[in-house]
Amino acid sequence: MIIDCHGHYTTAPGPHSAWRARQLAAFREGRPAPGYPAISDDEIRESIEQNQLRLLRERGADITIFSPRASAMAHHEGDERVSTEWARACNDLIGRVTGLFPETFIGVCQLPQSPGAPLDASVAELERCVTELGFVGCNLNPDPSGGWWTSPPLTDRYWYPIFEKMTELDVPAMVHVSASSNPVFHATGAHYINADTTAFMQLIQGDLFADFPDLRLVIPHGGGAVPYHWGRYRGLADMLGKPPLSEHVMKNVFFDTCVYHQPGIDLLCQVIDPGNILFGSEMVGAVRGIDPETGHHFDDTKRYIDAAALPDADRANIYSGNARRVYPRLDKALRERGL
Amino acid sequence: MIIDCHGHYTTAPGPHSAWRARQLAAFREGRPAPGYPAISDDEIRESIEQNQLRLLRERGADITIFSPRASAMAHHEGDERVSTEWARACNDLIGRVTGLFPETFIGVCQLPQSPGAPLDASVAELERCVTELGFVGCNLNPDPSGGWWTSPPLTDRYWYPIFEKMTELDVPAMVHVSASSNPVFHATGAHYINADTTAFMQLIQGDLFADFPDLRLVIPHGGGAVPYHWGRYRGLADMLGKPPLSEHVMKNVFFDTCVYHQPGIDLLCQVIDPGNILFGSEMVGAVRGIDPETGHHFDDTKRYIDAAALPDADRANIYSGNARRVYPRLDKALRERGL
Repeated sequence: MIIDCHGHYTTAPGPHSAWRARQLAAFREGRPAPGYPAISDDEIRESIEQNQLRLLRERGADITIFSPRASAMAHHEGDERVSTEWARACNDLIGRVTGLFPETFIGVCQLPQSPGAPLDASVAELERCVTELGFVGCNLNPDPSGGWWTSPPLTDRYWYPIFEKMTELDVPAMVHVSASSNPVFHATGAHYINADTTAFMQLIQGDLFADFPDLRLVIPHGGGAVPYHWGRYRGLADMLGKPPLSEHVMKNVFFDTCVYHQPGIDLLCQVIDPGNILFGSEMVGAVRGIDPETGHHFDDTKRYIDAAALPDADRANIYSGNARRVYPRLDKALRERGL
Repeated sequence: MIIDCHGHYTTAPGPHSAWRARQLAAFREGRPAPGYPAISDDEIRESIEQNQLRLLRERGADITIFSPRASAMAHHEGDERVSTEWARACNDLIGRVTGLFPETFIGVCQLPQSPGAPLDASVAELERCVTELGFVGCNLNPDPSGGWWTSPPLTDRYWYPIFEKMTELDVPAMVHVSASSNPVFHATGAHYINADTTAFMQLIQGDLFADFPDLRLVIPHGGGAVPYHWGRYRGLADMLGKPPLSEHVMKNVFFDTCVYHQPGIDLLCQVIDPGNILFGSEMVGAVRGIDPETGHHFDDTKRYIDAAALPDADRANIYSGNARRVYPRLDKALRERGL
């Protein structure tokens, strides 16, 4: 079985995105949000069947852990109320996808974060999505300001309410920023990768997993710069007087395989324990073209994992075993289906 | 010959750093800076001989391109006048090191950048350092705010005066941030690496080298996350309608080898044209410990280059040929010494 831990609904029906634009316009004008549009099951089916589902089948994966479009979370737009309405709309839409394609998609939610706002609304929305919509995790944005980095580090007590709820529900978070409103940071070329690197270093500096020994965080995009600079991080942990990374951080932190060329995946598999790697593609995402060097899509990451020098047991864990361990509610759903 | 393109004077005599603290205190109190202290040649000699020079000899390099301590540039402290005094003091000290050890150290200058200030003072200081102190390049901070990222991208016309002066003097810049005043970013574990990644993506988005075809930028720390995500960057350039990276960026951009483990260096040498790689260690820098996996210092990067699967000609270029091409004033100085 192959589980893609990193899929976003980047192909959501037009009326959904159009509503967001109208919602933000209403906010700017001091009006309440307009009513959410009717979107038919057929519209949703079509948007999935022609894109994610087609590619899953072509490429040979089975299940996608599916969440709202990351770049559209845009927690820096509007205020907490706006983020709450938008997160709810996005999560409900994911809920409809998972209802229409229950064998293939399982949900992960967007949180209604807002710069400077407490996390109460995020805690409530996580609980709603897990208990009512059957979701198995959340995307947590370490920088809801959209590139201005005004929130405290992830190890700060500001974040503890969401970590407490995650622990209670036994769901992980993928640490994933959204669009950048700072012109220095290209969203998918700089902000995403920087956030991954930044989050990992915060976890080295702090001692979050002493307070939350069961907390699990997935750092996407292959862990940002971390595996490439693994010696730097091992050395910095040592200089900071921390235990080895395998004890200090890597019992709780996992990297996905959204690294879009073979040498990068080879490095990832070489330096990171295969037990900490989850298959992911973020397909129909940041990089949609075909690599002229291979003739295949950059984000067809299964090809790289298939070609990596890995024992079969490790490859199987990367493809599904680790995801079932990190997302126990996914594992439970699969077992109920006899899988 | 082995040229280390990335060395900072991290071991400068105590009175130099103490003066900086007094300068900043005076600024906060609205007083002019105190007089710069007398520092003897012996103090400087000792600080170099016991550290950088000892390690150069132990590890087997010949020449270091030497600049003031990057984390202490702290362009976000004080104002433009404070940055100008501090840059001048730091650069003069580097000038004394290169005067005392002319066979081993050649200077690269700190610029008196300040958030929001124009670059006139930086242009003047670069000219002074190159024409009067014999320096061969500069360190350019893409984020003088120290982690708040308030300056425009490097491709913005804001930066053009310094690029014009660099072109006129035929000197390159290393794109190097300083300390982080934003608690989310650990300086050497996040801010440095993020800045490298960010700068590279800005260069993809823009078209800076159409305006400055002879400009040369060294992106340190192995290019941040870029080589690990080389497929992502190739794919993003394609999505943005840019030429292949080899034409669009890599005629003008170079990465150093400050990557502190063998698999990272192997990846760097595998995916980046060896003509774009400059040997560097940043030793006595960010990561000073011994890797328990190898028994050698993390930042002894020569070991990794020696062990990398590289043709001898490529290794020679990484060790010195590329640096002589990127820093023509260094090349000229070496030729004058018959090297």
